[in-house]
Amino acid sequence: MEKENDAKPSLERWKFGHNKAMAMAGSRSLRGAINKVITCLEETGPRPVIPLANGDPSVFPSFRTTPIAEEAIVEAVRSAQYNNYAPTNGLLSARWVVAEYLSKDLPYKLCPDDIFLTAGCSQAIDIIVSALARPDANILLPRPGFPMFEARCMYNNVEMRHFDLIPEQGWKPDLDQVEKLADENTAAIVVCNPNNPCGSVFKYHHMEEIAKTARKLGVMVISDEVYDHLTFGSNPFIPMGVFGDIVPVLTLGAISKRWVVPGWRLGWIAATDPKGILRKTKIVDSIRSILDITTDPATFIQGALPQIIEKTKDDFFNNIINVLRDAAEICYNKIKDIKCLTCPHKPEGSMFVMVKLNLSYLADISDDIDFCSKLAKEESVIICPGSALSMKNWLRITFAAEQTSLIVGLERLKLFCERHEKN
Amino acid sequence: MEKENDAKPSLERWKFGHNKAMAMAGSRSLRGAINKVITCLEETGPRPVIPLANGDPSVFPSFRTTPIAEEAIVEAVRSAQYNNYAPTNGLLSARWVVAEYLSKDLPYKLCPDDIFLTAGCSQAIDIIVSALARPDANILLPRPGFPMFEARCMYNNVEMRHFDLIPEQGWKPDLDQVEKLADENTAAIVVCNPNNPCGSVFKYHHMEEIAKTARKLGVMVISDEVYDHLTFGSNPFIPMGVFGDIVPVLTLGAISKRWVVPGWRLGWIAATDPKGILRKTKIVDSIRSILDITTDPATFIQGALPQIIEKTKDDFFNNIINVLRDAAEICYNKIKDIKCLTCPHKPEGSMFVMVKLNLSYLADISDDIDFCSKLAKEESVIICPGSALSMKNWLRITFAAEQTSLIVGLERLKLFCERHEKN
Repeated sequence: MEKENDAKPSLERWKFGHNKAMAMAGSRSLRGAINKVITCLEETGPRPVIPLANGDPSVFPSFRTTPIAEEAIVEAVRSAQYNNYAPTNGLLSARWVVAEYLSKDLPYKLCPDDIFLTAGCSQAIDIIVSALARPDANILLPRPGFPMFEARCMYNNVEMRHFDLIPEQGWKPDLDQVEKLADENTAAIVVCNPNNPCGSVFKYHHMEEIAKTARKLGVMVISDEVYDHLTFGSNPFIPMGVFGDIVPVLTLGAISKRWVVPGWRLGWIAATDPKGILRKTKIVDSIRSILDITTDPATFIQGALPQIIEKTKDDFFNNIINVLRDAAEICYNKIKDIKCLTCPHKPEGSMFVMVKLNLSYLADISDDIDFCSKLAKEESVIICPGSALSMKNWLRITFAAEQTSLIVGLERLKLFCERHEKN
Repeated sequence: MEKENDAKPSLERWKFGHNKAMAMAGSRSLRGAINKVITCLEETGPRPVIPLANGDPSVFPSFRTTPIAEEAIVEAVRSAQYNNYAPTNGLLSARWVVAEYLSKDLPYKLCPDDIFLTAGCSQAIDIIVSALARPDANILLPRPGFPMFEARCMYNNVEMRHFDLIPEQGWKPDLDQVEKLADENTAAIVVCNPNNPCGSVFKYHHMEEIAKTARKLGVMVISDEVYDHLTFGSNPFIPMGVFGDIVPVLTLGAISKRWVVPGWRLGWIAATDPKGILRKTKIVDSIRSILDITTDPATFIQGALPQIIEKTKDDFFNNIINVLRDAAEICYNKIKDIKCLTCPHKPEGSMFVMVKLNLSYLADISDDIDFCSKLAKEESVIICPGSALSMKNWLRITFAAEQTSLIVGLERLKLFCERHEKN
């Protein structure tokens, strides 16, 4: 394209350039971290890649979504009633059905105005962090946690303060630490239940403790419940909104995980707050303002939501739970068999387990990132390094995969560990 | 819910609260402005509401999208191949087809790596403004323009500097003013062609002038081409990327308008930059970083994109153009007939026309917002006040409506103006 009379312009003439703050925020994303591991794959190997990094088993036959959901989309798109822009908060019919869906597990009833539809749970996090991003505000985040919160705090210049989940106590949050971390500018505490990445499920009385601590500190609870109902141990799923009379809760959810359609990008923020504190303090207004300048979930997916939620049979949900329960069992037992890995808590919910890497057993592995990179290269198995979740020398493994793939993946993991063991 | 022993908590105990900066940003949205007009509707009137505010005629039969697009979605969703998360930049097959689609009108060929899929053009704006949001950066924006740029600049603390489009010169940008506004921190100039809200279409030599001015100033061009190919006057659509060898261009597009499916939320950013300056200056890296922490267009809509773009027949596009041409003609002529309204430039592209309101002819209307509010209340016609586009006492009217509705709407507008005329 260069013309003869047009000297090659030096880059200095251009006044725009790399945005380092955005690069920093982006570098905190899981996507970025997992993409880096993926680049270590050797393309020549004949063996299929086994993806055990993301909470997205939708490509596996056992995790195919229900035809009811697919046909609800077909009907919505063929109706041509949903090609238009959606209203700011989402279609009323879709908000109504989400309100009904969530109310089943609450001691009070939500109304459509309590629901804000979002393009998946990631966008829900984006919107909530923006809403709370007042100057000097800080947010309390769990370690380990879902890094989108960190990334969005960095993007919005919101200070983050981390409290630990304690592996020896079933990944319970350290509430003493929470109390010490909070100050006059603390706006919220984030919890995730069923827990990504730990695979733990909160007990009722622990949740009540969290709620009471938050109330004492004057902060709201942001409850990431994208793995709602995906529990298969002794603790049932309890929404944090059950404690909405103690403390206002913003509940995040989606059809991504329970219906195994993360690519459909349909989630929500629910103000589970029977006392209306989020409305009175204008948090709800802030959310609305941000939704006014934010993209929406596709309108026809919103239009399909009533059918998806109302018509899906329990059989479908039960089957997914059974598959996950078996997979978690296999994963836990196989990992117990690997000398350099320790699993402090058997997974009982979500799609993940956190595994501690004991480097002292390994000869030539420097850290979790090195471990995951070499594992990808040598065994074509993708695992998420704990560093991506602020847990250096841990691993996050998903067991949400076709059983045959999971077994092969874990066997390759074992071979890899044995090969790299110290003599 | 309140328990006996639990005194009603005062709002003061809560440390979170309204985010005024976000409210300011949200208040700059078109959505917010049009929502306000909509609240003025009288619900009791027997007459149907005529929506002439948004560029979204998808609800009208004449603007129904092609069955080819609908069936592409049906096939993609039934395949169950696209229920998973998409890659950061979008599915390769979808980026490939967008690259081919855009390359047809360019003197060079784009590759899939030049394309970043976004959840509609709004998200493309969000991402680009974020990418440019370095400390002290400023962006040159057209007045009138699409307010999402303003809203996102406010959200990201990017200074905006407005240059005028000159109504008497077919809404050409005032490039002398552009040169005066730019300084060392100016990162980009935004143009929109075919133009929303003016309905104008840039001529080749004007576009070349813009490109040369931008090059001289060392700023990139952000070219909003969401109304690409929707031209029906004497000026054909020319993408700004044609001048990519003069100045690097980020081109924004979507299937929203040409396929009349704004609710499907599928758009793109294209680096139309044959010299690779956006890559060398790491703007492309910044965009990628932001995409890593941003929600995506639904994967199955991405999966349907190759079929949508490759299989849609020219008949469909030609028909939409013919409907728009007739509608623009009707709109222009009907407005000429209304004493208090002046249309400085006959629309020849996009879906809009800017109309000047001459308040001196009117008895009891204080400004454009008052005009639109009373029009909604009295005539159930929704029009966008110019103030929402920084054009006080102008109106933005869309002619993209079913012809019968458009005629009724414009007749009601005329009656309204006559009723409020000074004696």
